[in-house]
Amino acid sequence: MHRTLAMIVVAVVTIVLVPGDSAQAEGQCAPSKFGAKDQAGNVNNITPAKTLAAARLVTKGKAYRLGIETNRNTPAYPPRTFNITVVQPSQAQGATLGPTKTTYNDDIINGWVGIGSQIDGLGHVGIDNVYYNCNKASEFVKVDGLTRLGIENVPAIATRAVLLDMVGFLGQDPVKEGTAFNQAEIEGAMKKQGIKAIEKGDVVLFYTGWLKLIGKEDKRYGAAEPGIGVEGAKYLASLGVAMVGADTWAVEVVPGEKDTGAFPAHQIFLATNGIFILENMNTEDMVKDKAWEAFFTLGPARITGAVQAIINPIAIK
Amino acid sequence: MHRTLAMIVVAVVTIVLVPGDSAQAEGQCAPSKFGAKDQAGNVNNITPAKTLAAARLVTKGKAYRLGIETNRNTPAYPPRTFNITVVQPSQAQGATLGPTKTTYNDDIINGWVGIGSQIDGLGHVGIDNVYYNCNKASEFVKVDGLTRLGIENVPAIATRAVLLDMVGFLGQDPVKEGTAFNQAEIEGAMKKQGIKAIEKGDVVLFYTGWLKLIGKEDKRYGAAEPGIGVEGAKYLASLGVAMVGADTWAVEVVPGEKDTGAFPAHQIFLATNGIFILENMNTEDMVKDKAWEAFFTLGPARITGAVQAIINPIAIK
Amino acid sequence: MHRTLAMIVVAVVTIVLVPGDSAQAEGQCAPSKFGAKDQAGNVNNITPAKTLAAARLVTKGKAYRLGIETNRNTPAYPPRTFNITVVQPSQAQGATLGPTKTTYNDDIINGWVGIGSQIDGLGHVGIDNVYYNCNKASEFVKVDGLTRLGIENVPAIATRAVLLDMVGFLGQDPVKEGTAFNQAEIEGAMKKQGIKAIEKGDVVLFYTGWLKLIGKEDKRYGAAEPGIGVEGAKYLASLGVAMVGADTWAVEVVPGEKDTGAFPAHQIFLATNGIFILENMNTEDMVKDKAWEAFFTLGPARITGAVQAIINPIAIK
Amino acid sequence: MHRTLAMIVVAVVTIVLVPGDSAQAEGQCAPSKFGAKDQAGNVNNITPAKTLAAARLVTKGKAYRLGIETNRNTPAYPPRTFNITVVQPSQAQGATLGPTKTTYNDDIINGWVGIGSQIDGLGHVGIDNVYYNCNKASEFVKVDGLTRLGIENVPAIATRAVLLDMVGFLGQDPVKEGTAFNQAEIEGAMKKQGIKAIEKGDVVLFYTGWLKLIGKEDKRYGAAEPGIGVEGAKYLASLGVAMVGADTWAVEVVPGEKDTGAFPAHQIFLATNGIFILENMNTEDMVKDKAWEAFFTLGPARITGAVQAIINPIAIK
Repeated sequence: MHRTLAMIVVAVVTIVLVPGDSAQAEGQCAPSKFGAKDQAGNVNNITPAKTLAAARLVTKGKAYRLGIETNRNTPAYPPRTFNITVVQPSQAQGATLGPTKTTYNDDIINGWVGIGSQIDGLGHVGIDNVYYNCNKASEFVKVDGLTRLGIENVPAIATRAVLLDMVGFLGQDPVKEGTAFNQAEIEGAMKKQGIKAIEKGDVVLFYTGWLKLIGKEDKRYGAAEPGIGVEGAKYLASLGVAMVGADTWAVEVVPGEKDTGAFPAHQIFLATNGIFILENMNTEDMVKDKAWEAFFTLGPARITGAVQAIINPIAIK
Repeated sequence: MHRTLAMIVVAVVTIVLVPGDSAQAEGQCAPSKFGAKDQAGNVNNITPAKTLAAARLVTKGKAYRLGIETNRNTPAYPPRTFNITVVQPSQAQGATLGPTKTTYNDDIINGWVGIGSQIDGLGHVGIDNVYYNCNKASEFVKVDGLTRLGIENVPAIATRAVLLDMVGFLGQDPVKEGTAFNQAEIEGAMKKQGIKAIEKGDVVLFYTGWLKLIGKEDKRYGAAEPGIGVEGAKYLASLGVAMVGADTWAVEVVPGEKDTGAFPAHQIFLATNGIFILENMNTEDMVKDKAWEAFFTLGPARITGAVQAIINPIAIK
Repeated sequence: MHRTLAMIVVAVVTIVLVPGDSAQAEGQCAPSKFGAKDQAGNVNNITPAKTLAAARLVTKGKAYRLGIETNRNTPAYPPRTFNITVVQPSQAQGATLGPTKTTYNDDIINGWVGIGSQIDGLGHVGIDNVYYNCNKASEFVKVDGLTRLGIENVPAIATRAVLLDMVGFLGQDPVKEGTAFNQAEIEGAMKKQGIKAIEKGDVVLFYTGWLKLIGKEDKRYGAAEPGIGVEGAKYLASLGVAMVGADTWAVEVVPGEKDTGAFPAHQIFLATNGIFILENMNTEDMVKDKAWEAFFTLGPARITGAVQAIINPIAIK
Repeated sequence: MHRTLAMIVVAVVTIVLVPGDSAQAEGQCAPSKFGAKDQAGNVNNITPAKTLAAARLVTKGKAYRLGIETNRNTPAYPPRTFNITVVQPSQAQGATLGPTKTTYNDDIINGWVGIGSQIDGLGHVGIDNVYYNCNKASEFVKVDGLTRLGIENVPAIATRAVLLDMVGFLGQDPVKEGTAFNQAEIEGAMKKQGIKAIEKGDVVLFYTGWLKLIGKEDKRYGAAEPGIGVEGAKYLASLGVAMVGADTWAVEVVPGEKDTGAFPAHQIFLATNGIFILENMNTEDMVKDKAWEAFFTLGPARITGAVQAIINPIAIK
């Protein structure tokens, strides 16, 4: 969602200066079906039985890394920036350490997390400042880290990934920006690929060909994208999926469908249903291999209070 | 290795101000057996057959996250620091976005990578400025990122983890600082646990109980540790392991064995043999479950040119 | 104001979750007497005649630097942190540049501006999100910089400083925390020191002895302080001063006077009157020399959109 | 010097991988005439008498700010970057603080110091890792700050500025890149402007018109510049000036004169003579007013161990 949200603010939506009645919003919020203290959302649907079944999808021993690179040139909407600094502590003037002449490099990150391949935590997007499981911003959002819903709470992820090849289904490469994926498109792609069902605890990944624009058409890449529509988001939520992802920066369709607001699918997934979002997932090699179902594992770096994480999930076939 | 290296510089080793003859060091360096351009080291030993066999270790569907939390309080040797900043762009004065009243948080990292659970990339430690596969610092170390051996080059990791319970073997919890694990200790632990062999492409993890000192005895935690000795490092390297890790900040024994220099096992693993190092791996739950062999997956965030990565590998049993 | 504001939030004040009617606040706000576009506030009162007269206070040629040091150990209320990183670009492996063997260091700042000696810009503190000259937060506060009232707009400062020695007046060193300086104290100190008048365009500095607690009683230093009271702030504002400062972290009294709210003098100075605030001004040497009136110059680093600046004003006698 | 040094490394000079004999370099280094512990260099030449005389140059009461703005768009050679982040701590969900509805902004800097108007400290450039007053890099350069020659040591600056209008003297606006200012040019400009002498403790500023390229011809601005030549640098050093500056990013001529190495004037000023360098000084308004001699004041932010500082000196006429 990250890169063009600020842009959307300017171009598409109205900024509401006087917040709505938070008490009302709280009244409307959806308490988690996993309990008042839950911070894991639909990842709770990944049971040991689910993990075990998913592991049995490994039949070739081929592992795919789904992360793209993050660096200062990765397209990102202003004001996001990213830098690393490599240093050689205690080695000024070419000094080495000890009799084995040890030398070493260290590195420092100065950057926004919302660049490159990311997981959106449940504290990323809310409805009028109310987030997943009725958590109010005033209660958990601190400038030095979230006190609830931080990315450190994500459990170990080992489940089934289902890959929907929208390029193959729609016959466009990349799929055109503004194309919404709703129930019809999801089921159509499944049928074409021979995928029988999307199940509770699944990670559903959409392939649109969009990532190949990076480095070639950066402006187009960040200005819009094909993706999940509002009805499609609700449909996926109804199936109990744990995570949804795509090879796009927002996973959901941009510009949004008519009269749907600013990133409504983010609200449906994160705030209302506790479904994590995986952005910029590179599934091109999986598509080439027709690896439509695979064992999917993910462990986001456990930075305390972080909203998001830069990730590189591993899918295994 | 990270936290106390600077300390070690002061306490144990001599700083050599005039570097040795780099040409000589280059002559002594070990070209990779995987070719002159290789940046993956022993991860090349993880073949599809290896991955497939490892996946078959999943018999219960239980997934373990091996990462500890990284934050401003995680013990780290000076001058390392870590901070995140959580912001709400375009939401000054309590503004929300659009008709669905979207609100959101973003986050920014300002921190050293060498804090918490980490993977050391092959560009982390060298011998007199010569790193894995004879890469000279002057040729690939740039202040804004490594141009070779960066963490973005690590392939998808899906292989077998072997967990050595040194607490169980030695009857100390935690194992006392300064205790070196060499071939005898490694084979002793294997025998006690019924592990038949360490094989090419394995990830070998040591459990010492050391992590439980964090938050209780931070100073002791960072001042020393039990870990792999020089002979043990060479032995593991001879077996062709892909990665070695431990529930300690340096994996290797600190203080080092007599007359072995500054972090010699780091040099043996990273520079000489292309074996990645995994630090602060929390394997306590695996030990409780006696999950001595498990399917191990890791995808470090692909930050271009990064020396290290904050990680959270997933082991599945 | 910076260090303990968050503390005050917890300890003293009530967080109001539903903002007041901004339109109302706007109606109440004070348009600047210097015009609707003014961003300089009472610095407009520093006329050439004022500068010229102030320059004539230089009779000895002695220059004082009023800045204290800013570093990672400077006491600052959580979550504020400050770090610099020193690097040697292109000099890996001890390389030097060219035939004259040039070597060089560069540095990178990662830190909150509100640490050490600071100037508070007019965008720092507001009343219900309305800032100096009726600027509303929603209109000028962006996550990557203020679009109005940024510190880059501060004109060149060259005027008279008047130093009020509250230690001498009250006979306490340091002056006890919670001691409020109102009109009576201000006039009392002036009389004792022989200062005839505070005039339009003056910089008024209070000496309390508080800075000497740094490094000795950091906790006491940051928990409270003596300083300007509400009535004193209004009195100084009525005189048309350009800036007020002190050798404390907030300049105003902490804890605040009964029923006065959170940092009310900051609101009076910055939001209502366009008077800049100078924190942690080290005037100890001036006091020793009884330099009660001096030529005062200040040029804050012109970082675009910055709220505050780390400063080191020069007073000359 | 900052922006194009890396470029110069690539384009002009040879990187020497094996450092010269530091002992030899040390033997060649120039001990400061101000004593073995001196860190202030020629600022020691600014005596009270000098300050007093300079203050008498104020005849109109007009103050000039010499700093340009520093932000993410200020041209800077890779990899330098600069960002600020503006935050509203404890104000999530539009909260205000206390009965007076206090709101506030804070800011965080993440950026290289070498962008915009800067002072180069005496630890910035050395000769084969030996810096001002024979300080060796191995002894004072730490990754978290210099332990000697840090910018916090710069005394209060209040002295005479002499402005040399090279545009007026050479009849070019801007003066063409590669134009070297040596003794003949310096004396020629002085004569034309009626400046009798450059004296000990002076700050000498060159006006070339170069800054007006920013925002219009950024690439040209950073690729080269007119500036002081080697002979001119030695001449100015012989006069005992405290600081030299210009409206360019390096103050010295780029490309350098034939066979002079990489930034030789930086070495002459900083390392050999303890003369500070002021870069990107905006003196355009002074030139318009023919303010050839003025009272000059500067207090760099006292960040402990910093190599440089972003500055905004004040000149008063």
